[in-house]
Amino acid sequence: MRIAIDAMGGDFGPAPIIEGVARALEKKDFTPYLVGKEEIIKELLPKKYHSRVRFINSDDVIGMHESATEALKRKESTIYKSIELLKSGEVEGVVSAGHSGASMSLATLRLGRIKGIKRPAIVTFMPTIKKKYSLVLDVGANVDCDAYNLYQFALMGEVYAKVVLNTPNPKIGLLSNGEEKSKGNSVTKEAYTLMENFDNFIGNVEGGDIFKGDVDVIVTDGFIGNIVLKTSEGVADTIGKLLKKK
Amino acid sequence: MRIAIDAMGGDFGPAPIIEGVARALEKKDFTPYLVGKEEIIKELLPKKYHSRVRFINSDDVIGMHESATEALKRKESTIYKSIELLKSGEVEGVVSAGHSGASMSLATLRLGRIKGIKRPAIVTFMPTIKKKYSLVLDVGANVDCDAYNLYQFALMGEVYAKVVLNTPNPKIGLLSNGEEKSKGNSVTKEAYTLMENFDNFIGNVEGGDIFKGDVDVIVTDGFIGNIVLKTSEGVADTIGKLLKKK
Repeated sequence: MRIAIDAMGGDFGPAPIIEGVARALEKKDFTPYLVGKEEIIKELLPKKYHSRVRFINSDDVIGMHESATEALKRKESTIYKSIELLKSGEVEGVVSAGHSGASMSLATLRLGRIKGIKRPAIVTFMPTIKKKYSLVLDVGANVDCDAYNLYQFALMGEVYAKVVLNTPNPKIGLLSNGEEKSKGNSVTKEAYTLMENFDNFIGNVEGGDIFKGDVDVIVTDGFIGNIVLKTSEGVADTIGKLLKKK
Repeated sequence: MRIAIDAMGGDFGPAPIIEGVARALEKKDFTPYLVGKEEIIKELLPKKYHSRVRFINSDDVIGMHESATEALKRKESTIYKSIELLKSGEVEGVVSAGHSGASMSLATLRLGRIKGIKRPAIVTFMPTIKKKYSLVLDVGANVDCDAYNLYQFALMGEVYAKVVLNTPNPKIGLLSNGEEKSKGNSVTKEAYTLMENFDNFIGNVEGGDIFKGDVDVIVTDGFIGNIVLKTSEGVADTIGKLLKKK
């Protein structure tokens, strides 16, 4: 398998990405296409791996605080080039730790969507007490969603859990302010009735259920998903700091 | 000051409420009106405090899982009687650890709203790393809010922080998926432009800012606020369990 890797993006620059590639090459047989400043990447990657990768030079990187729309014009950027490698069939997948909005926009516009799917979603893995992950989507691609969007996120989350995580009957929950069917805002109440068709739909779930590990896929809109993600990081970070103080 | 106390409500029954009343009486000079089953309360409250409180007998309690609309009919319930004491001027305030929806509905319908305020909000205190609290509202009263509702929550939060918490210039933030003005869903973007009139409005804040202690009042709708609250409790609870395991 050939995978394009945005070697420059991310909060900590190319070093951890290249280190990750080296570790992955120890365990898996695949061909990384390292997209980025070739001289920097060659410097960081131990010589013994050089023959197992392809270097795709790119001098432009979309910064984390730049606009996602900017990405569409910057055809020499690492993300643009990575997506183009996938579009042309040279690779089978793309990995980027960089600007998620830029990756999302480029993937949507250059690669397109699955037929019938109205909006893409960003999925994230949340840790649980059971030492397995729960999937939460959308965590940032769509700030305004209607009930049908949420229904399609449930559908995509279900397929992802089945195919990628090998969970045969993933339990799907709708994030709400209470477990009862009567709970929810107007959009989630409508989404609830659409999702009732799913065999694997278990109904509404609450914020705390994300970490219990009893639900495999948790559906919400990208505005709430992003707030949930950052709130969770904030709590964990604060507890960490408080424990260190003691 | 006379305060009506719903002595029966709450997840753990009357015991911790009565214990709290006894501790408060040690520190403060006030008259609790203990609303609930008189014989149970008298049994729980040490004799030395009996002369400092009033007992208001009530045999009915709204259970945590009953419907909030049910509360409006149950005129003998502890919450109903507590609210009536306030309405008639016998007390200056009401405290209940019971059914928040019932308390909210009864307060709104029996006491009314401040003139001009369209919707009440539930405010909560969130802990921060700076050992002071941040206020978050609404955390559950309104699942569907428009921009003007959010604007009014900011206004009420500001007044609450000034008058009740003695914070002269409380910093007010709008919960969003990023700090930039361009971030937000359609409702919060509109709310942002309304809030720009406030001197104390500092713009959008993210989930993690709730716990940093740099923002005094954080505004969101009751659907998201409830999810944020339960997500935070879920993370803290999970970390607690993981630490105990080790």
